[in-house]
Amino acid sequence: MAKDKPTKLKARMPRGLADRGPAELASTRAMLETIRKVYELYGFEALETPFIEYTDALGKFLPDQDRPNEGVFSFQDDDEQWLSLRYDLTAPLARHVAENFDRLAKPFRSYRAGWVFRNEKPGPGRFRQFMQFDADTVGAPTVAADAEICMMAADTLEALGIARGDYVIKVNNRKVLDGVLEAIGLGGEENAGRRLTVLRAIDKFDKVGIEGVRDLLGEGRWENPAAKSGDFTKGAGLDEAQAAVVLSLLDRQASYEKPANETYAAGLAELDEIAALVTAAGYEGRVKIDPSVVRGLEYYTGPVFEAELTFEVKDEKGRPVRFGSVGGGGRYDGLVGRFRSEPVPATGFSIGVSRLASALSYLKSAEAAPEYGPVVVVVMDRDQTAHYMGLVATLRSAGIRAEMYLGNPKNLGNQFKYADRRNSPCVVIQGSDERAAGQVQIKDLIEGAKAAAAITDNAEWRSSRPAQFASSEAELVEKVRELLDHHGVPHGAALS
Amino acid sequence: MAKDKPTKLKARMPRGLADRGPAELASTRAMLETIRKVYELYGFEALETPFIEYTDALGKFLPDQDRPNEGVFSFQDDDEQWLSLRYDLTAPLARHVAENFDRLAKPFRSYRAGWVFRNEKPGPGRFRQFMQFDADTVGAPTVAADAEICMMAADTLEALGIARGDYVIKVNNRKVLDGVLEAIGLGGEENAGRRLTVLRAIDKFDKVGIEGVRDLLGEGRWENPAAKSGDFTKGAGLDEAQAAVVLSLLDRQASYEKPANETYAAGLAELDEIAALVTAAGYEGRVKIDPSVVRGLEYYTGPVFEAELTFEVKDEKGRPVRFGSVGGGGRYDGLVGRFRSEPVPATGFSIGVSRLASALSYLKSAEAAPEYGPVVVVVMDRDQTAHYMGLVATLRSAGIRAEMYLGNPKNLGNQFKYADRRNSPCVVIQGSDERAAGQVQIKDLIEGAKAAAAITDNAEWRSSRPAQFASSEAELVEKVRELLDHHGVPHGAALS
Repeated sequence: MAKDKPTKLKARMPRGLADRGPAELASTRAMLETIRKVYELYGFEALETPFIEYTDALGKFLPDQDRPNEGVFSFQDDDEQWLSLRYDLTAPLARHVAENFDRLAKPFRSYRAGWVFRNEKPGPGRFRQFMQFDADTVGAPTVAADAEICMMAADTLEALGIARGDYVIKVNNRKVLDGVLEAIGLGGEENAGRRLTVLRAIDKFDKVGIEGVRDLLGEGRWENPAAKSGDFTKGAGLDEAQAAVVLSLLDRQASYEKPANETYAAGLAELDEIAALVTAAGYEGRVKIDPSVVRGLEYYTGPVFEAELTFEVKDEKGRPVRFGSVGGGGRYDGLVGRFRSEPVPATGFSIGVSRLASALSYLKSAEAAPEYGPVVVVVMDRDQTAHYMGLVATLRSAGIRAEMYLGNPKNLGNQFKYADRRNSPCVVIQGSDERAAGQVQIKDLIEGAKAAAAITDNAEWRSSRPAQFASSEAELVEKVRELLDHHGVPHGAALS
Repeated sequence: MAKDKPTKLKARMPRGLADRGPAELASTRAMLETIRKVYELYGFEALETPFIEYTDALGKFLPDQDRPNEGVFSFQDDDEQWLSLRYDLTAPLARHVAENFDRLAKPFRSYRAGWVFRNEKPGPGRFRQFMQFDADTVGAPTVAADAEICMMAADTLEALGIARGDYVIKVNNRKVLDGVLEAIGLGGEENAGRRLTVLRAIDKFDKVGIEGVRDLLGEGRWENPAAKSGDFTKGAGLDEAQAAVVLSLLDRQASYEKPANETYAAGLAELDEIAALVTAAGYEGRVKIDPSVVRGLEYYTGPVFEAELTFEVKDEKGRPVRFGSVGGGGRYDGLVGRFRSEPVPATGFSIGVSRLASALSYLKSAEAAPEYGPVVVVVMDRDQTAHYMGLVATLRSAGIRAEMYLGNPKNLGNQFKYADRRNSPCVVIQGSDERAAGQVQIKDLIEGAKAAAAITDNAEWRSSRPAQFASSEAELVEKVRELLDHHGVPHGAALS
């Protein structure tokens, strides 16, 4: 009968999204806490903005605008106004500062950690929801603010365990890039769009290589260049001479004629000042001027930064590659000014949390210890539930993670299987005989696994440390604590 | 010229959303950490699901469906499928369990903290984005799982500092309610919609009072009953005799004839079993059976819980009222089953984090100490920026929160005003004379504020603790540490 068997829904997630389990969440939590401590030390204070903003307040500053919904998830409010999920933490900060301008102490130094959303084509390691951790100084015109934020990025990476020499904070200046573009005839308001196309082409260097950038500076580029198939990205339409100048920026060996315009000179002077501050503070080599950095976002107006991990990992084809960028930022003096009658200078840095977490997992995989689950009290007699729950409560009040098996207790094997799958250190068993004697059996699952793994017979060890032993109910906490300590399983103290 | 003065955007937030500053974020973080520790101790493990789900996977289980978009924020994906922001953490859990069913150890015990979104009419204390903290046991048919989760809720509230006697976890059973409704002629599949309307009417008791519930059980209720204006909520259409039976559930003094149907009997037996487990574990009086609890969500199938704070606060008119609900939950045996061919029993509890945080702020407001900002190094000579940044770096590497003033340094008064607004404990000053002598001036802003506040002349104290004093550069860390310790301002140790 159709009514008794309705079509079942399929349990599935939209593309580019992911569930996260205990190991990933624990390492992310520890990582966020470390970043937070460094940022607090630097005098930044916590701020959180909502996930939803008016679309016009966010602006249209995304690098990928080749899709109809322009990279953001948008929907209309009851009053017909358009809302969007935030796509970064910078545009909402600009809105916050403008909205609370007179109330805030300036420079306003804040940090924000949170999820952002991009309505883009997902791919391997490219999600539609991901986490950023930002710090920004708003109201600071001086490049000392830029230099400070780069040094903080370096300190943060080291606090997270990335060795000096395994990372570099690269600094460039949009004014230098603009000066070069001005010199090849791309100056002026009327070329703003083409300049942006050029910057985004340079920004894709890591992904598409020098030939890819050349295509993007010229006519354009196919997603699969060999087959001329996939999406086609229109290029900037530069001629060969113009393209050659731009391409020389990507080649440390190449030289190009320094443009004689003011924009270029101003940009270079700012870079010199940053370099001097960084050197004086002892961050030389950790924070480096690098002409290939551009950043894909439109709103940058001065210095731009990129945090790059320089150690090698294997790419999907097993070839060694540098890990690459884990964050970036820059100066965006116009973003708050969109809401106000005067310009408001601002600079900030954003860490790609998921990307950095994946880098840290490369570094730490060797030291990762197994995480143990709760002590499981099995259910032998269904009518003794209250008593078993009492044993669990005793363990918990001593700070020991514990639970009673809550599935169908009929099959004892299933209960042990459950404890195994939870990676429980031990199981507590009490049948009617033990209960009558005021005793429990404690089965050591870690020892049991060791014994099962040992090929050679080690009778002495096993007899000194049997995988199952009896304990009086009164000594339950003490015996379980001994077992956990013996195996180095962390457990808490008694609850207050 | 219109082009030079484009219309400025207005910086504003959509209704029902909020920015959050450092004090609120710090207390929420501490609170989440405490809840997490209790849940871990109980053997639950961390899980996070994405903010966006397929709309059909979320289902339509919201209490307020009187708006066209049915309470959720929805939008279409590129492939035309409808997506929604999650409106709670239970429906996504059901999707997660169904999607990973064979891989998960069952019972699957997870906790999840995160923002959820309701596209509803915002009001005072009623936001469109708010945080929940959930724990759920999926795959446990026995009411021991329900009893455990109620006791965990009690332990959580106490761990957060809510005294025994200031809260109660109230437990009822949908089967009991369904049994009563069956007895007054509302049984059967054809009355499912009306039963839900009745349950939602009862659930609004705290907000609308007994007369409001009576209206909602009958013809319906105006938002402003006196003026018969505002939104009109259609009622369940019960006659007076039917309504009287339902209303008697809300009155502890009233008695009603116990229905003689199986549903009612089964519900009552489950409540008896929960009461017995709770009593055996010593939670009597903290976890209580209460026939007025219903919960507004459609998907509950058995026991339902409500965590209520019983201490009094003042309402907006200054009248004393009970603080009220800070969380709730229940058994939802059908929710995972929507995706599978067999039913999957499940029960869970959800804490309203923002609501509970506001309760805790009532309790703790008396003890709240001021939070201090960073030590501020002021800029006397612009060309000494690198040297001032060096002083800041020295403080930071000693674990002392510090920053150089990064605004325009021209006006020294503005720099001191900034330090005041950041609630800095002290300011470090170095002009050319001090620099030549290898010295700095340290201005104690806490002492300064005390001196300014003191009406009586207290010459001795002030001379023993001057608000400004000199220090050699070499002793800077030591002197600032002494100052912070003297005022009880927490600071870190040297960074590793």
